[in-house]
Amino acid sequence: MCELLGMSANVPTDICFSFAGLSRRGGETGPHVDGWGIVFYEKSGVREFKDYMPSCRSDLSQFLSKYPIKSHTVISHIRQANVGGVGLENTHPFQRELWGQAWSYAHNGQVPSASALEHTRFSPIGTTDSERIFCWLMDSLAERFDAPAEPAVWAEYLSGLCESINAQGVFNLLLTNGNALFAFCSTKLSWITRRAPFGVAHLSDKDLSIDFSEVTTEHDIVTMIATQPLTNNEVWQTMVPGECRLFVTGESVWEKKTTI
Amino acid sequence: MCELLGMSANVPTDICFSFAGLSRRGGETGPHVDGWGIVFYEKSGVREFKDYMPSCRSDLSQFLSKYPIKSHTVISHIRQANVGGVGLENTHPFQRELWGQAWSYAHNGQVPSASALEHTRFSPIGTTDSERIFCWLMDSLAERFDAPAEPAVWAEYLSGLCESINAQGVFNLLLTNGNALFAFCSTKLSWITRRAPFGVAHLSDKDLSIDFSEVTTEHDIVTMIATQPLTNNEVWQTMVPGECRLFVTGESVWEKKTTI
Repeated sequence: MCELLGMSANVPTDICFSFAGLSRRGGETGPHVDGWGIVFYEKSGVREFKDYMPSCRSDLSQFLSKYPIKSHTVISHIRQANVGGVGLENTHPFQRELWGQAWSYAHNGQVPSASALEHTRFSPIGTTDSERIFCWLMDSLAERFDAPAEPAVWAEYLSGLCESINAQGVFNLLLTNGNALFAFCSTKLSWITRRAPFGVAHLSDKDLSIDFSEVTTEHDIVTMIATQPLTNNEVWQTMVPGECRLFVTGESVWEKKTTI
Repeated sequence: MCELLGMSANVPTDICFSFAGLSRRGGETGPHVDGWGIVFYEKSGVREFKDYMPSCRSDLSQFLSKYPIKSHTVISHIRQANVGGVGLENTHPFQRELWGQAWSYAHNGQVPSASALEHTRFSPIGTTDSERIFCWLMDSLAERFDAPAEPAVWAEYLSGLCESINAQGVFNLLLTNGNALFAFCSTKLSWITRRAPFGVAHLSDKDLSIDFSEVTTEHDIVTMIATQPLTNNEVWQTMVPGECRLFVTGESVWEKKTTI
């Protein structure tokens, strides 16, 4: 299994604190040693960092833990390989352009039947089941909507696709077009929205605290989503299997719960 | 105008030496202060680094100058903005997936008529003429070839497209699918192939030398392509306007010269 991390915020926000915790799960506090990746959205632009080294030992992840990139939306993933060898081509998040938007996606779980999915416009570059499903989701969105759809509209459609994939395996996922961040819980995902009054948070994976009141304004709203809560002194919301949510500018704006 | 840098090699090779020279042109020895980007191919995988800061002052470019990523194919670009604001979405190289391959592209020049190009499958995310042309090239490749074509076949087709774009402006470009690196010279591009016996090279933009014989084997073949020669003690080949070349595993495998 892998670990997912996502962020949605109403102001450009850096993720150094959370990433410092997550990256320790890549070989120190967790067994996910087969690479890691992170995507930052800044307006409509995006930058992506990937490495096939364990995040706890990667020079690049150490650099990023201290390099404050301010972003509205972030997706990150640390990998424990199941399907597909260790290599950049199999490292999440995966990215494709649709409607002139950069879409990114990361998956935790396994869906063996993904090998049967066929592709039209979007094709996998690597050999993971995860990327095969991503390309199929993007194909499906492109076929269903001729023009850019509103986030709650594509989220509703996407939730049905996710349910059908989830019925065939384990399919926790984060997906974003930079503007809206979609999360589907198959087995394990938690989230927290931080807003004023901000307090002190302490990482679960490292003896590190931050006083968010010192680095925010009273208008800031920041949601974090992770496979497991990243802090041990805050209350995270635990998503239930089959639950999906859409976050825009830090707020949960749409949700759906299905019985699976 | 901007500066381009490309590499094609038969063994995974780092580009730290050349990048140290190029990055100084982003604000020190050159005026290209509006961001920079670099794409490294490792097997079929790719990683990309981008910043909207001048490369000479970017923490990330300083990190990369000393972080040896070994790659078969590299494209880099430092930007002096003409069309499109300064931001990640307008920072080269641009990337799209076609045929299950990650294609990357960087452009030096201006083509005002690019705003009239229409798109089908690939759409621009930013607002540069460069990305509009890239999407049009990718649309054209996807329409012309149903299945992955051999490099010399798509290069021949691409050269005709490049000539038509070049007739409308200035269009120096580097484009690659990771396996083959295509270069089209509109006004200015030079290249050099290094092979045994290797010697000492000295950067034009920085008082820095490297003895390639100490970091290579006798079988290594490495071609560098740049807007202007990066070293001042080696003989670079100057491409003529209208010349295009294709490099695979460090060798120039195909060329075409048109009178423009």
